[in-house]
Amino acid sequence: MSEDSRFGLARTVRLPGPLKLDGGGVLAPVDIAYETYGALNADASNAILICHALTGDQHVASVHPVTGKPGWWVRMVGPGKPIDPERHFIVCANVLGSCMGSSGPASTDPKQGAPYAMRFPIVTIRDMVRAQALLLDHLGIRRLRAVVGGSMGGMQALSWPATFPERVEAAVVIASTARHSAQNIAFHEVGRQAIMADPKWRSGAYYDAGDPPTAGLAVARMAAHITYLSEAGLTEKFGRRLQKRTAKSFGFDADFQVESYLRHQGLSFTDRFDANSYLYITRAMDYFDLAEEHGGHLANAFKGGARFCLISFDTDWLYPTAESRAIVHALNAAGARASFVELSSPFGHDAFLLDVPEMNRVVDGFLRAGER
Amino acid sequence: MSEDSRFGLARTVRLPGPLKLDGGGVLAPVDIAYETYGALNADASNAILICHALTGDQHVASVHPVTGKPGWWVRMVGPGKPIDPERHFIVCANVLGSCMGSSGPASTDPKQGAPYAMRFPIVTIRDMVRAQALLLDHLGIRRLRAVVGGSMGGMQALSWPATFPERVEAAVVIASTARHSAQNIAFHEVGRQAIMADPKWRSGAYYDAGDPPTAGLAVARMAAHITYLSEAGLTEKFGRRLQKRTAKSFGFDADFQVESYLRHQGLSFTDRFDANSYLYITRAMDYFDLAEEHGGHLANAFKGGARFCLISFDTDWLYPTAESRAIVHALNAAGARASFVELSSPFGHDAFLLDVPEMNRVVDGFLRAGER
Repeated sequence: MSEDSRFGLARTVRLPGPLKLDGGGVLAPVDIAYETYGALNADASNAILICHALTGDQHVASVHPVTGKPGWWVRMVGPGKPIDPERHFIVCANVLGSCMGSSGPASTDPKQGAPYAMRFPIVTIRDMVRAQALLLDHLGIRRLRAVVGGSMGGMQALSWPATFPERVEAAVVIASTARHSAQNIAFHEVGRQAIMADPKWRSGAYYDAGDPPTAGLAVARMAAHITYLSEAGLTEKFGRRLQKRTAKSFGFDADFQVESYLRHQGLSFTDRFDANSYLYITRAMDYFDLAEEHGGHLANAFKGGARFCLISFDTDWLYPTAESRAIVHALNAAGARASFVELSSPFGHDAFLLDVPEMNRVVDGFLRAGER
Repeated sequence: MSEDSRFGLARTVRLPGPLKLDGGGVLAPVDIAYETYGALNADASNAILICHALTGDQHVASVHPVTGKPGWWVRMVGPGKPIDPERHFIVCANVLGSCMGSSGPASTDPKQGAPYAMRFPIVTIRDMVRAQALLLDHLGIRRLRAVVGGSMGGMQALSWPATFPERVEAAVVIASTARHSAQNIAFHEVGRQAIMADPKWRSGAYYDAGDPPTAGLAVARMAAHITYLSEAGLTEKFGRRLQKRTAKSFGFDADFQVESYLRHQGLSFTDRFDANSYLYITRAMDYFDLAEEHGGHLANAFKGGARFCLISFDTDWLYPTAESRAIVHALNAAGARASFVELSSPFGHDAFLLDVPEMNRVVDGFLRAGER
């Protein structure tokens, strides 16, 4: 299989489309940047799709081309890990609307011969999933052994069996929700307003000027980043400790370590992410309401027979355990096979990206149960 | 007393200063805008000082001159209310660093003949309290029957007996803390960065241009406003309800009511508040650490014999009950007289400004106990 040019790292495919979108429009062509790890077995039955979060990408277990950092989920994906290229054919694709090679606002609008910018159509979580299904068609994968994701990746992992029930055996949904709460919408709106308030945003048409709205995007990232951590985690990690000084400066420098950390998080983010993509993807998350797509009853989304594994973290206040529990209740009402565990971690929402051995054991056990 | 020009609404006094500041500098002159309600009794023993929160002002129970809205605490202050001008001589002063008439970054720097802007010295909560003490000297008040405040007002109410133990009989501290947590510093830093990222901020020197950084200030306010509400309160008030439409627009308009609400909160704030004051006052709050000012032991701050009343709200995640409990433990360790109650409210941190009858009963009972 390794000589098949469809497989491997740093792949991009132009799918013919048109992709019909929830918002009523169509998108064509549809570029999808993706990576695969491991080998697809003879009956194409060992495929696992990994779905990334808001600012993630297809580099789940390969070095990021911009930051040079290891893949974002090497703790979960790799030899000897729960998702293992020795056993699984692993696919991870950059979501529609993003900026790492898949079609998004920075892509060229064929009608204009210029970047779409804000002419790019609004996409939904389900549209992202539909584009992933086209990619699987291209790869010759009819049915997924599992779809796995945390945060927005978990939304996709929920949307997959709801949208293509015959194509998914199992879904692993970590630190996620079936619908965005008012508070989550509010935090996203702050981020969007921060970007749009930056004069360099230019109503989204900043690509030609070569001077993107980094200040606004950095503020958006800083605000969001706070929500990814727990208060206890922030206190443990930073407390009120000062940054490279022994006394307060009585000024507006980053006196406190937590200020310096946040500023760094904001600025470094702007090197690798497109501000318009941030607008589009947060909007997709806000619009996500799986029950609404199924007649107002979440249980209706889960009629397909897939197995589900839900994991939440006790200090995650962005997608608290109650959100996972609501999904489990709907799964039970639908008669779906579901396991659910709340794990303890000091790291808040970010825990799903970190070293949580218990999470790995749960995912490993769940996946192996389907492989026996 | 009513003919004494020092007393009444909309007063401003220029205190000679110089006021020595925690940051090492001095401020002179010191203007304080304030209001008084009720009459000072013959032995000047019925004075209650009310301290306002970050974006509050001296108009505690009078119509706000810019917004035309009633005073910010008319539920607590007024005839028949716990703080009653029939019984109490009530003082409320705009804090140092603010923008409603007290000395702040928009004030004229006498050395330059122009607004201080970022040349205004960093002030602390204790500096605000010291300025209030000068005001009380001016008003002929040696000793306060009580100092009362919520949120940043609570910080001042804590700082008062610690700084001037002989001048305070009782302190009412609502929804507050003895030190700002890493998470709270982080949220403030996001707000400051939003302001500073606005090109109209011009390093603070925007007063002459007549074109202040309203976009950045609005984003700062939006981010902060989320922290004032509870998730449950936001869900109850807005949920995922749409704003004046029956279906999603699949665009970036304020589809959701919570977006529209937040945008309004951000924009309307900029009509009444100065961006530089927002920088200075958030900094004062971040620097607040009452234990640090007393050898690292909070109990050392409470040696003066004042009575304390602590109130927290169960849904306040900005200054959660644990913060009040830590203060109570220190008060107990100091042998101070302290009462503490956690009240139930769906409204998060904002509860202290809202109609919470139980809060009024607690404050009323506590104040009357000192008047018997």
